[in-house]
Amino acid sequence: MAALVLHEYAASGNCYKIRLTAAHLGLKLERREYDIMKGETRTPEFLSQVNANGRIPTLQVGTDDFLPESNAACFYLADGSDLIPHDRFERADMLRWLFWEQYNHEPNVATLRFWAKWFGLDNLNPVQRANLPGKQAAGEAALALMDEHLEKRDWFVIDRLTLADIALYAYTHVAEDGGFSLNPYPAVRAWIDRVAAQPGHIPITA
Amino acid sequence: MAALVLHEYAASGNCYKIRLTAAHLGLKLERREYDIMKGETRTPEFLSQVNANGRIPTLQVGTDDFLPESNAACFYLADGSDLIPHDRFERADMLRWLFWEQYNHEPNVATLRFWAKWFGLDNLNPVQRANLPGKQAAGEAALALMDEHLEKRDWFVIDRLTLADIALYAYTHVAEDGGFSLNPYPAVRAWIDRVAAQPGHIPITA
Repeated sequence: MAALVLHEYAASGNCYKIRLTAAHLGLKLERREYDIMKGETRTPEFLSQVNANGRIPTLQVGTDDFLPESNAACFYLADGSDLIPHDRFERADMLRWLFWEQYNHEPNVATLRFWAKWFGLDNLNPVQRANLPGKQAAGEAALALMDEHLEKRDWFVIDRLTLADIALYAYTHVAEDGGFSLNPYPAVRAWIDRVAAQPGHIPITA
Repeated sequence: MAALVLHEYAASGNCYKIRLTAAHLGLKLERREYDIMKGETRTPEFLSQVNANGRIPTLQVGTDDFLPESNAACFYLADGSDLIPHDRFERADMLRWLFWEQYNHEPNVATLRFWAKWFGLDNLNPVQRANLPGKQAAGEAALALMDEHLEKRDWFVIDRLTLADIALYAYTHVAEDGGFSLNPYPAVRAWIDRVAAQPGHIPITA
């Protein structure tokens, strides 16, 4: 595989997903840090060379190929490995959880973490403040759906860790940063422990 | 392939994506309609049997397998076909656009269509009203990014139609329903015409 460079903000769960996937696969990533609080991903250089959408993570493959979107980068790294199911329906079902994570989980659980830990909830603008109760409720609904799903299974898709578990772990295991308690979700807590106990696991701070 | 049933609300672009993918592949879908305005996807039966997340579309494969998330359903249908690039990086790059569509495009372009055509903008609740300017701006940004990307290429990922084009076409070609003008985006308009001119194409009303 060509040399891999992760353009990232290390504390972001979306960036951590890619590092965790690479760790499970034994792949080396060079890391390049951008301070999103200082707008370093909105500079003309970043927009023209790394990601026109102005966001991290972006995975650089070799010198010329740039891949934004965290779950697409994880898929690229894991393509052909056991982190992606080999059965057609199960592979699509894994993607289902990746799309669900980006639509139902990340905009709520990750956004509240960002608001609470980086901005401070007292500093939200009026639109953010209007959205706070809805995002809290939607985040709880996402965690409850995960808990129900995990009541009868150890992993999200098949009987081993896949990208669905990695993607959902990234922000779930730090959900308390955003004011969510995991106490009502015992199946989620047990699954978090299972993910963290896997050989090859690395923490978000690594 | 086992019998396919699409649980849907036909006017939804997310449901149309799946029908359009199936049409290109020559696959037959049985269709089952739910009135989302009457809460028919939030009944106990729907939540326990079709999708615990209470949303359409969900693709049923055979009798027991249910696949929510529109782009995952498209991937399932197209897996192994020319609608998905065979090269590893290009395949991930296609997924990049599918994730981008669900995160940056659909919550803005599709949501404004829904608010404008189904609710009426005068009937928005205070939280929706607070979000209106931000969603209008984010929708314009998504269309502008697409236009810039298409200035130098005919299709989103490789030199033919892929699921990225199908997924992005679904809500872009009806963006005017949500109050977006496509006049500032000539490359998008030319691409819309190219998608609609492909053999096997069907309209959203089919």
